[in-house]
Amino acid sequence: MSHNTHQVVFQPSGRQGRVAEGITLLDAARQLGVDVDSICGGRQTCGKCKVIIESGQFPKYGIASSPDHVMPMGEDEARYFAKHPPSIINHQSSVTTDQLPVTHYRLSCAACITGDVLVTVPPESTRRRQVVRKGASDRPITIDPILRQMFVEVEPNVLGGRKGDWERLQEALSCEWGLAGLRIDIHALRRLTPALRAGKPSTPGVKPRVTVVVWDEREVIDVRPGFHDAMYGLAVDVGSTTIAAHLCDLHTGAVLATESAMNPQVTFGEDLMSRVSYVMMHEDGLSKLHAAVVAALNDIATKAARRAGVNTDDIYEAVLVGNTVMHHILLGLDPTELGAAPFTLATHAPVDVKARDLGLRIHPAANVHLLALEAGHVGADNVGVLIAEAPDRQDEMMLVIDVGTNAEILLGNREGVWSCSSPTGPAFEGAQITHGQRAAPGAVERVRIDRVTGRPRFKVIGNDLWSDEQPPGQIKATGICGSGIIEAVAELFMAGILKSDGRFNESWTSGVGSGESVLVADSPLPTSYLRFNGRKAEYVLATADQTAFGREIVITQDDVRNIQLAKAALYAGCKLLMRRRGVARVDKVMLAGAFGSYIDPLHAMVLGMFPDCDLSRVVAVGNAAGDGARIALLNKSRRAESAQAARRVHYIETAIDPHFQEEFVNAMHLPNRVDPFPHLEALGVLPDERSAPDEEARARRRRERRERSAVASSQSAAPEDQAP
Amino acid sequence: MSHNTHQVVFQPSGRQGRVAEGITLLDAARQLGVDVDSICGGRQTCGKCKVIIESGQFPKYGIASSPDHVMPMGEDEARYFAKHPPSIINHQSSVTTDQLPVTHYRLSCAACITGDVLVTVPPESTRRRQVVRKGASDRPITIDPILRQMFVEVEPNVLGGRKGDWERLQEALSCEWGLAGLRIDIHALRRLTPALRAGKPSTPGVKPRVTVVVWDEREVIDVRPGFHDAMYGLAVDVGSTTIAAHLCDLHTGAVLATESAMNPQVTFGEDLMSRVSYVMMHEDGLSKLHAAVVAALNDIATKAARRAGVNTDDIYEAVLVGNTVMHHILLGLDPTELGAAPFTLATHAPVDVKARDLGLRIHPAANVHLLALEAGHVGADNVGVLIAEAPDRQDEMMLVIDVGTNAEILLGNREGVWSCSSPTGPAFEGAQITHGQRAAPGAVERVRIDRVTGRPRFKVIGNDLWSDEQPPGQIKATGICGSGIIEAVAELFMAGILKSDGRFNESWTSGVGSGESVLVADSPLPTSYLRFNGRKAEYVLATADQTAFGREIVITQDDVRNIQLAKAALYAGCKLLMRRRGVARVDKVMLAGAFGSYIDPLHAMVLGMFPDCDLSRVVAVGNAAGDGARIALLNKSRRAESAQAARRVHYIETAIDPHFQEEFVNAMHLPNRVDPFPHLEALGVLPDERSAPDEEARARRRRERRERSAVASSQSAAPEDQAP
Repeated sequence: MSHNTHQVVFQPSGRQGRVAEGITLLDAARQLGVDVDSICGGRQTCGKCKVIIESGQFPKYGIASSPDHVMPMGEDEARYFAKHPPSIINHQSSVTTDQLPVTHYRLSCAACITGDVLVTVPPESTRRRQVVRKGASDRPITIDPILRQMFVEVEPNVLGGRKGDWERLQEALSCEWGLAGLRIDIHALRRLTPALRAGKPSTPGVKPRVTVVVWDEREVIDVRPGFHDAMYGLAVDVGSTTIAAHLCDLHTGAVLATESAMNPQVTFGEDLMSRVSYVMMHEDGLSKLHAAVVAALNDIATKAARRAGVNTDDIYEAVLVGNTVMHHILLGLDPTELGAAPFTLATHAPVDVKARDLGLRIHPAANVHLLALEAGHVGADNVGVLIAEAPDRQDEMMLVIDVGTNAEILLGNREGVWSCSSPTGPAFEGAQITHGQRAAPGAVERVRIDRVTGRPRFKVIGNDLWSDEQPPGQIKATGICGSGIIEAVAELFMAGILKSDGRFNESWTSGVGSGESVLVADSPLPTSYLRFNGRKAEYVLATADQTAFGREIVITQDDVRNIQLAKAALYAGCKLLMRRRGVARVDKVMLAGAFGSYIDPLHAMVLGMFPDCDLSRVVAVGNAAGDGARIALLNKSRRAESAQAARRVHYIETAIDPHFQEEFVNAMHLPNRVDPFPHLEALGVLPDERSAPDEEARARRRRERRERSAVASSQSAAPEDQAP
Repeated sequence: MSHNTHQVVFQPSGRQGRVAEGITLLDAARQLGVDVDSICGGRQTCGKCKVIIESGQFPKYGIASSPDHVMPMGEDEARYFAKHPPSIINHQSSVTTDQLPVTHYRLSCAACITGDVLVTVPPESTRRRQVVRKGASDRPITIDPILRQMFVEVEPNVLGGRKGDWERLQEALSCEWGLAGLRIDIHALRRLTPALRAGKPSTPGVKPRVTVVVWDEREVIDVRPGFHDAMYGLAVDVGSTTIAAHLCDLHTGAVLATESAMNPQVTFGEDLMSRVSYVMMHEDGLSKLHAAVVAALNDIATKAARRAGVNTDDIYEAVLVGNTVMHHILLGLDPTELGAAPFTLATHAPVDVKARDLGLRIHPAANVHLLALEAGHVGADNVGVLIAEAPDRQDEMMLVIDVGTNAEILLGNREGVWSCSSPTGPAFEGAQITHGQRAAPGAVERVRIDRVTGRPRFKVIGNDLWSDEQPPGQIKATGICGSGIIEAVAELFMAGILKSDGRFNESWTSGVGSGESVLVADSPLPTSYLRFNGRKAEYVLATADQTAFGREIVITQDDVRNIQLAKAALYAGCKLLMRRRGVARVDKVMLAGAFGSYIDPLHAMVLGMFPDCDLSRVVAVGNAAGDGARIALLNKSRRAESAQAARRVHYIETAIDPHFQEEFVNAMHLPNRVDPFPHLEALGVLPDERSAPDEEARARRRRERRERSAVASSQSAAPEDQAP
């Protein structure tokens, strides 16, 4: 090697420096701290390190760059490019050149520097690529998983050499990749000898080549013959009702397939506490529930792999999130203590367990990582939400609500995050509702009620038209799902049909009706949408001819009451955190949960699911828990930080907080009995009879409404706030 | 606590010092570095720490000791002794007292010091007890296994406490036992919560108590409710033919049961290479062989546990040894490379693998440890021999021969140990011998041949009488086992019936016969013991009426040749090591192997299985490999040292040594063509015609024998040495 040096500039980072003549561009990149990927360790096989050598004068850097300033291509490199012609489309170099960039592609591990060069590293050649997370927040994830795949040449054994295959592989990994002190999983050890035999090139004198997968720079978990760059991971949100999994490419971060399935544990109990009871009452309860969820996970993994055209044996890591009960049952841990105070967890720490020890049929030495738990009622799913939404990295005061049978709520900013769990019950998932059902085709998911006529229109899942845009017989509604019931109640309230205390307004009358009060005690009402029968009132959302089962879909007073209970718990939880955090308002609200992606922020706020906020800052972020699992799958630092973040969150036990009950009672009102909702007021969506602190204002509003009604229909009816 | 101090002396160590008044004897022992056991951590439950407080004046230490110099027994301690009265027989105090020692027993964790005391620590209360290893060497093993059982009280959880069961257990283990940074096996984590629930005393305010098993001060592998001191281990020698296991108490080191069984792999191939071939030829070969040996191990473990009245779930550790092929198959590693040069191992290092990953049905989180391997042909069994016989700890030059289908040989002393493997073939196990069989009832195991008459007598396994002490019909010999054929050949040689080149002596004649030469070519000879038929000679060991199958048991020229080949390989291996080590003679020979315990050192040396040595220094040590496994099971330091020792051993590859063939050819002679056997010469057991270097000496000996023969029978016949 000459002692001459040359100036090398890397784009887009702009990193530059003088390097010795004759070294490869890959070595130069490493010397200058430029991130260039490589699996094959410089054997011109993997193509991960390909770069573009620019041509021309670059006054900014004071150099003239040319493809001739590196040594010409050798046979191996030429063979690689013949097999894998670089796509011009991939060339996103910002540097203008006068030649077609395709001629400039080189493998940086092969190209030895003979003069000054300006090199562009395309995004696909950087190891820590970023992928954009789908969904509302669209924050990028840096791809840096806990696994690495490494291609190595292993010295052959010699007679009397006294080095086993594993010892020689360790030497190769130490020498080529700087890894020391590794251990090897028994499954990888079993594959090692056959892999070395199969990975032995037919050319004499060429050393056997294998690709290893190293977990956490600590353990070799697989060995494959030759070059093998398939490496996938699963991110799974194990919900009480639904299990949703993303199959990701651990090199690119791409989501190759998304699968979901019903959690088969529902046959043992709809809600968490009934499953805990099942475990307590049946000796084999835990093993049955455990086996059921593992079977479902295996099914999902198989389907996702098939859909993506991937071998399940190439799935080397899984990150699972779930609430504390799901977490425990999944690991085979007794959840009994979670059923009663003090709600003791088996462990708070993140858990790493071999896939084979869970019976998970991905790669047998794959690690399954479960994120940390925060508290008895705030599980790994909320830690997923925490790392996905990262309130602890915000300046603004952020409220994150993950809606489910138990809602978990996070509040805070970089100065501190508070969390609690709120016992909403399953109403938001369509349970405990007369015609409630899960979100599935046929379920009413959107509801609009005419403010004047009180007439409903709705949309069902799987049908793009609103109910009033098609003949009734085509609709075939089957029930109401969570988002449908929330919108229905909010709309009923906005139309004045429900009073702010949640009761049906007995003095409500259609703005286009006869003008007489429609209230006739103990008899059906003449209106086709609202009727009273003694103390039982109900609103007809879908007529018999609009449903699949030939009977009406109604919303009863009990349904409204259950939604009130659920939303009041949620609201009270939010208020509790705000009180502890010492803030009167929040800057931003993130509505998470599979639920969260289907509900309109306006309706949620009108219902009073959370305190007042600028509606433009209320965002439905979808399955944030699952996104968090994906982040932990793709980025080891974020994973490590999540355990720390989970410990730092200040957990509030709602059950023992003296203010919770008070906030809960106030929050039974729509949207709240005492708290102001200035943003809703400004939008004018609240009915006039909304609780006003003084009787005079209330009377004034009543007058105003009367006048508006008169304009609309020359009629007036003054609904009265009957708040207790 | 007072600031007064008192003098405390511990026997038998004699350690003493002043300690603060009020501390317990256990704390005093720890302060003074005295080894006193404890599992319960001072809760007066386990009784492991009981000591004897001596009474009287002890001028040697300048103190007066009395049981009154510690605080009186409390309720808990009294309850313990009521339940477990100390046996007076155990009291081996060398200190004379005037009271019955039984009154002086105290739990050292309970007895607080109020004055000067002299305390005797009985052997059963020391943690690092020693047990004497059975067998010839009788070296003690210090009991210090890699596992420890610890009894702890765990703080109960409180509402809002945010510490899981595992976090609180870690705190207890850190606080009471000083252990930090522990991890927990998933199986132990699964048991933790139920154990804490079950281990909660009914008395309010008393904390839950559990017993944990900690592996290598790193990992909690089990949690049991309350106090649980059962902890067992298995030491297994997985031989090609026989699997032998010891079930040991890991607290006392006692062998509670010994079980052995045929290695079921023999149905896939008698010798190792045929099993390797089976793996190569059958796609499921490895998994079949693996499953077979695991099933056998499970069977043995179950039987041993049943015999000892022990639960297999209390077996927390297993140490396995075996040759390299057995080792690989047991772990599910491909043994193909062991079938041909360069004899590459998958790994040389010791392997730790969870019992459940091998399918071994002991405690699922139990660790299975396989000792290191030395080389392609020198396996973990030889490392077992190495730590059992410890040539590397001797001043004397020690030769250790582990006889089997492949013999492994160790030679050396503390300045260095050399090893090699020698391809003896299966003749020593009775295979490749006309009437050979395994050591089993009916097999001839002992042979004596009258020097003068040439008449044999023998003993069969399962029959205490010699063949000439009982009617022929009672003997029912079925064949000859390894030790029988070795003694037979050695005796034939000593009687002059075999010449030193291994050929039957055609000119041999019974000292009491007609005096004429009995050699008649191509015809049966008149002697009833030796006959020639053309070039085929055979010696009749058992007559037809002495056998179970009604035909003679004979030893043919081919049988002798096979034994010669086997012993020559052994001898050549020994010589090779001696040459490399640069020694002309050895001080000590250890004959190991199940074989080794049944063969007489004299016969082995006369045959020339190993170079000349003082016969009183030749010892059959039995299954040293299995003993080594037991040592590694009972003592973690010895285990750790064994891996180092295995690396330090200088391995000689016999296949590539230029001298091996030469030594082998010389060693075909009985006992050897060129090497002197002064110890045998001195005993006068060698026949005169033994190869003498000069023709004159040979002639002289011939003359002498003629004279002796003349004295015996007035006849003479001069057998001639026909060495090539």
